[in-house]
Parts: sequence; C-alpha cells; structure tokens
Amino acid sequence: MLRFKILKTSQKNKSRLGLLITPRAVVETPVFMPVGTQASIKALDPQKVSSLGYRIILCNTYHLLLRPGVEIIKKAGGLHRFMNFPGAILTDSGGFQVYSLFSFSKITEEGIIFRSHLDGSEMFLSPESAVLAQCELGSDIMMVLDTCIPYPCDYEKTKELTDLTHRWAERCLDYYQTFPKPKGALFGIVQGGMYEDLRSLSARYIANLPFPGYAIGGLSVGEPANLRNKMIEIAIENLPEEKPRYLMGVGTPLDLIEAIMRGVDMFDCVLPTRNARRGTLFTSQGYVNIRNSKYKEDFSPLDPFCSCYTCRNFTRAYLRHLFQAKELLAYTLLTLHNLHYYAKLLERVRLAIKEDELTPLYEELKKLYQKNPEEVEE
Amino acid sequence: MLRFKILKTSQKNKSRLGLLITPRAVVETPVFMPVGTQASIKALDPQKVSSLGYRIILCNTYHLLLRPGVEIIKKAGGLHRFMNFPGAILTDSGGFQVYSLFSFSKITEEGIIFRSHLDGSEMFLSPESAVLAQCELGSDIMMVLDTCIPYPCDYEKTKELTDLTHRWAERCLDYYQTFPKPKGALFGIVQGGMYEDLRSLSARYIANLPFPGYAIGGLSVGEPANLRNKMIEIAIENLPEEKPRYLMGVGTPLDLIEAIMRGVDMFDCVLPTRNARRGTLFTSQGYVNIRNSKYKEDFSPLDPFCSCYTCRNFTRAYLRHLFQAKELLAYTLLTLHNLHYYAKLLERVRLAIKEDELTPLYEELKKLYQKNPEEVEE
Repeated sequence: MLRFKILKTSQKNKSRLGLLITPRAVVETPVFMPVGTQASIKALDPQKVSSLGYRIILCNTYHLLLRPGVEIIKKAGGLHRFMNFPGAILTDSGGFQVYSLFSFSKITEEGIIFRSHLDGSEMFLSPESAVLAQCELGSDIMMVLDTCIPYPCDYEKTKELTDLTHRWAERCLDYYQTFPKPKGALFGIVQGGMYEDLRSLSARYIANLPFPGYAIGGLSVGEPANLRNKMIEIAIENLPEEKPRYLMGVGTPLDLIEAIMRGVDMFDCVLPTRNARRGTLFTSQGYVNIRNSKYKEDFSPLDPFCSCYTCRNFTRAYLRHLFQAKELLAYTLLTLHNLHYYAKLLERVRLAIKEDELTPLYEELKKLYQKNPEEVEE
Repeated sequence: MLRFKILKTSQKNKSRLGLLITPRAVVETPVFMPVGTQASIKALDPQKVSSLGYRIILCNTYHLLLRPGVEIIKKAGGLHRFMNFPGAILTDSGGFQVYSLFSFSKITEEGIIFRSHLDGSEMFLSPESAVLAQCELGSDIMMVLDTCIPYPCDYEKTKELTDLTHRWAERCLDYYQTFPKPKGALFGIVQGGMYEDLRSLSARYIANLPFPGYAIGGLSVGEPANLRNKMIEIAIENLPEEKPRYLMGVGTPLDLIEAIMRGVDMFDCVLPTRNARRGTLFTSQGYVNIRNSKYKEDFSPLDPFCSCYTCRNFTRAYLRHLFQAKELLAYTLLTLHNLHYYAKLLERVRLAIKEDELTPLYEELKKLYQKNPEEVEE
C-alpha cells in the first residue's frame, strides 16, 4: 500500500530526500501537508490545492466522524471522491481533537469517552473504532489512536499515558490486520512527553511494531524549541532509517527546517492556512501582517519575489482592503499565498538536500522567523 | 466613451439584442451584471468572474467612498486596477445605499446628509460629489444621484422626490460636462414611484436630457410584479429606442425575462450571489436549497444539466456538508454556480431573441420560478 524510497541522505546532517509512494500519488519528501479539517482546505477549492503542487493533505477524523459522519463519506465512495481531491489523504486518529476541543473527555483502558462539540452527545473512541473509521474514510495513511500528554506533565502521568499509547498501538495493529483489503497504511506514534528516557523508550517500543511509518507526537504543545528539537533527536535515533518519519502538528518555516535537519520527512500544520485567515503572511521578507495600516496605500505585491496568483495580480493595499472589509476573497487569496509559500519552501529544502547545502537556507529562515509576527498598528 | 448598437428587435415583443461598446469591453445585451459591492464579487476571484463570461460588473460607490476611500483607489490607478477586473465597471451613485442602510439620512435641495455605517461620522452626498467620486473611481458607466422613493408612498411625496431627482439629474450633467476627460458615460435615472402619470412624466423629463443611457429606478422595492411591469412599460414607452435601458436592482430569472420582453437591456442584482451564500441555488429544476436534509446523501450534482466547475466536480451531499460546516469553500462553489446560471440564462435569452422565440423560455421560467424557494427541513 505504501512504499518509501530514500533517494539521498545528507553527509552534514540527518536530512534526507525521499519518495513516499501511495496508490494515488508519488510524494517527494520532506513534505508539508496542508490541513483540510472538515474535508476542505479552508477557502481553497481542491483544484487550487493541486495546482500549488500538493499531492497529499491531512483531514481530521474527529471532525468527519461528527459531521457529516463516516457513513455518508463511505456511501459517497470515500473521502477522496467526497471532496474530489485526487492526491493522497492522511487522516489523524481523532484523539488529539478529543483532547484539544473539550474540557470533558475521559480516558479509560478501553478508549476515550467524550462529548461532541456540535450537539453535546456522548461518544466513544477506541483504538479499534479509530482504525475502522479511517479505513472507511478510505484514508491512504492512517494514524493509531494515541493519548495526548499535556505540557507540562509529571513523570508518572507521562509514563502512564505513554504505556497506554503503546497498548493502544498494538490493539490498532491487531484490528488493522483483521480488516479486509483494500486499506491504507497505518502509522505508529511515538509519545513519551518531554522526558528523554520515556521518549527513547517509546520510540523503541513503537519501532518494534511492524508499522510502515512512524509519527512523532505530543510535541509543539507549548514547550521551548530546543526541548522539542531534543525530543525529535531522541525519537529519531530509535526509529528505523528506512521508514518515513512524520512530525505531527509542526510548524513555522524555522520549525520545519530544524526538524528536517534532524531527519523528519513529513509535516502537517494549520499554521499557513489559519495565519492567512488572520492576516499573517509568510513572505521572502519574513512575516507581513496585512491588517497593518502602513499597507493602506502600498501598491506593491504582498511579496515581490513570489509568483503565486495573489502576488501576481493584487496589491497589498487591495488585500488589506479586502481583509478589513471582511470580504471572503481575502481568505482565499491569502491562504493561496501562504500555501504557495510553504510548497515553494519545501521545494527549496529538497533542492538544498540534493546539493547537501541546507545550512544557508537554515540561516536565512532563522533570520526571518526568529522574531514574532509583526504587531498591528491599525 | 460608450456606444450602443441594436442588432435586432423582436417582432413579437419589445425585446432587443444589442452591443454595449465600452473602452474596456464589448458587452452583449440583454446583460446581467453581478454586484461587487466592496470591489469584490463576494467569494470569487476576478479570474473566475471573467471565466464565467462576465464582461461588466457593478460596484457600489457608497461602500467604496467609506472604505477604502476614493483617494486610495485613485492612487491605485482606478477601480479596475485596484481590484484587477479587466472588463467594464458600472457604479451606482451611492444614493440607494444611503437610504437602505440608514434610519438617519436627511434630504435637502443640496443633497443627502447621512452617517457612515462604519464609524457614524456625518457625511454629505451631492449630485456633484456623486459624479466626482465615480469619475475618480474610473467607472465606465456612472449613475446620476437620484432620490429613493419608498413603497408605498403618497402622490405628493412621490412627485416632490421625483422633481428633485430631475433637478439633481441636471446638476449631475452640468457637473459632468465640466469634468475633464477621460471619463465614463453618465446614465440618467427615471423615477416616478408607482404612479403612471409621474413615471411617464419622469421618463419624458430624463429622456430630454442628453444621457447616453437611461436607468429605471425605484422598482423592486416591495411592489407586486404586475405593478412593476406596468411601470417598466410606461418608462420605456417614453425612452428613446436607440439608447440602452437599465433596470436597477432586478431580479429573479422570471423578473429578468419579463423586463426583457418589455425592452430592458441591462440588469444588476445581488440575488444570485446573496442567495448562494444563504444556500439557495438556481437550477434547471428551479430552486434548490442545499441546506435541506434530503440532500444529505444525495450524490448527484447540484444541477445535472449544468456545466459549471461546482456541478462538474461536487455532489449535493458534499455541498450540503460544506454549507452546514460553514466552510468558506461552500460560498465560493455556490456563488460560482449561481453566477454561471445567470450567465447561461442570459445567453439563452439572447439566442432566443435572435430567433425571435422568447416565449418558450418565458413559459419555462414561469413554471420554475413562480413559486417561492423551497422550504428547509433540517
């Protein structure tokens, strides 16, 4: 169902160039996957998403379970047909949303009890039901159900939740193996919180299970960047060389390149799309906040070095006007730009790995993105 | 600046086929102009608008005066460059919005005093300032400032406001003639409320002024269709044959064809775009309300006889899901469909006039649209 081919490994750092081969798409890695939570990359039609070069996206099982429901998507012929996206789709297990969207959710050995954020009804997610839902969606890459460890979290609690993640991973795998074909690939998830020994233990435990790929979970939850990078290093030391590694929910351009230099192959994050809808853009000059009054009469493109539809056709003054006037076109044009930026960034990364010259790009991104997005003076 | 060429006049009714020739676009009439209130057709990029075949759109002077302000658009090189629309742009005078958006607005001989709906500041619109603003926007077709007559309205008040409209029309024309070239064409507006003699008087008065085109205003304000049609007939009897006639703010497909058969050449209306954002679609089977629960598992296209991007690529079930989930893509896809429907409808109208066979289309639309949009059962 899934093959991963490493084309080149850097001599200077742990970065590598690869191909993730799924039935629907051949994906060059390192890759960034835009997030289409409710079976839509917010504000973009799937033709635009494809035209930006994206061959794989992520959808959230939790949201789709609740609305429109897995049954409807199954009847539609699967998620790809439902949303008319021709590339590959990775789905998460739903576990993360259950934690992040609710004050109420209860973990038992069996699974997670939670309430729908739409109608408050009680629902239950188990390792088995999470895999079943993803199989029925027709996902190309599925994720095991894991536990979400808050930050900070004490050692005992972290160990307990990590152990439970391991038992759930085995249950997912057992259930997956009984599910009839065709089905997507199932990835394991490393947890272990922010403790070096638990991260290492978790990576070794999960690496011992026959998954075709491995995710690193529980990061980007508020910890400092150096701690995150340390955890990534420990996880990757204990994961097999030949399998793809996916860092969940990360991040800024700088976060991405730091993880890539440590050996990560896959990423997803709401950052480019969510930031766009809030007026924060990634450009060759760093962050631009289009709400800023200094762009009121700025008739230059958002990014003069960008070739996206937005930058080729509209000025900062117009984009600011659309945003201030809450015109829907603002969200479309700005999302298009940010996703174009991420696609081009990953292209540059892959080219740099090919030439084994990632450091200059890393230095450039560090300079651009170490500071926070610009403040808005309205 | 503007030429109008009549290619054919029906022998059976007053409909005619024409070409409206502006510096930026040659527009086939009868024509429907989508509304881009704030310098954007809501939820669509200008490339999509053009690809639907629209060569002329309408923008609202009132909204642009307030935000971003005429100065900024002037500095941007005019409205066309600001919003990057390559076709022609018609602007209204701002008068209608002043009435419809405010409880507070005061009419004097000089003009209209009103408050901005954005910040409450007091503003003033005169016949001269309305023309100036539109000239500065770079509009291809401008409208004189008129008064808006409510419905119902007594005879004396209607006469008073109609007479004022006439004096303002002359002032607009005087001011316009002093304005240096290049400038767009300025259209007059017929008022007269719902009184036959006043409509007739107003049409004769305005027709006597040297405008290159004439609008029929003050209709579609709540009056029954037969009364509206009567007023259209009276206005058109008194307007010159060789000039374009524009019915402002109308309407449904049925409204359009009824007015076309009475000799109207141009229309604008928020209906297709606003309805789309509310989930009401125009289709070859009449109204569809995509929120309706019966479309939950309907995997057929919105309109099986439609060739728009939406109908070619997505099912009713998916569109309903997007709409219920408030995904921005819903508004884009549904707006695209409705504007495609209107563009194709006008194409059919023009073809039917060419063959002088408008009645079957009229009968079809009467059957489809005499009833109200379907109720929603959620």
